[in-house]
Amino acid sequence: MGKSVFYHAGCPVCVSAEHDIISLIGVDNVEVVHLNQDMSRFDEAEKAGVKSVPALVTPSGQVLHINFGASMADVKA
Amino acid sequence: MGKSVFYHAGCPVCVSAEHDIISLIGVDNVEVVHLNQDMSRFDEAEKAGVKSVPALVTPSGQVLHINFGASMADVKA
Repeated sequence: MGKSVFYHAGCPVCVSAEHDIISLIGVDNVEVVHLNQDMSRFDEAEKAGVKSVPALVTPSGQVLHINFGASMADVKA
Repeated sequence: MGKSVFYHAGCPVCVSAEHDIISLIGVDNVEVVHLNQDMSRFDEAEKAGVKSVPALVTPSGQVLHINFGASMADVKA
């Protein structure tokens, strides 16, 4: 199985979900991308279909929006 | 690690998320509850903090609302 990518923006909802996801999937199976700290990944996330953060993009390309921290528009602002 | 519980209501968003979650976490680590087929679990889900389906309740009791299929009010209606 390939790696999933977890996109977040440092919000409290994001951090809480990050802990849960890592504990469920395992730290070796997920790459964590902090968009506010690395805006070079923003376009890639949007292209993958991420509408809000936190979100998990699975190895098969499905986007799971987990709870709701912030919209991508808010992240960009 | 205890089992997570995945609550859903048979909607297309739910079924798609179910496949993703099982493939990520492993079928042995998640109990799948179809609320429309087993309304006896509805109160338990609401008490756990589930506001909409599909949702995953982790072994530590965190609720991850994954995408949005239907509100719990819709499930009950």
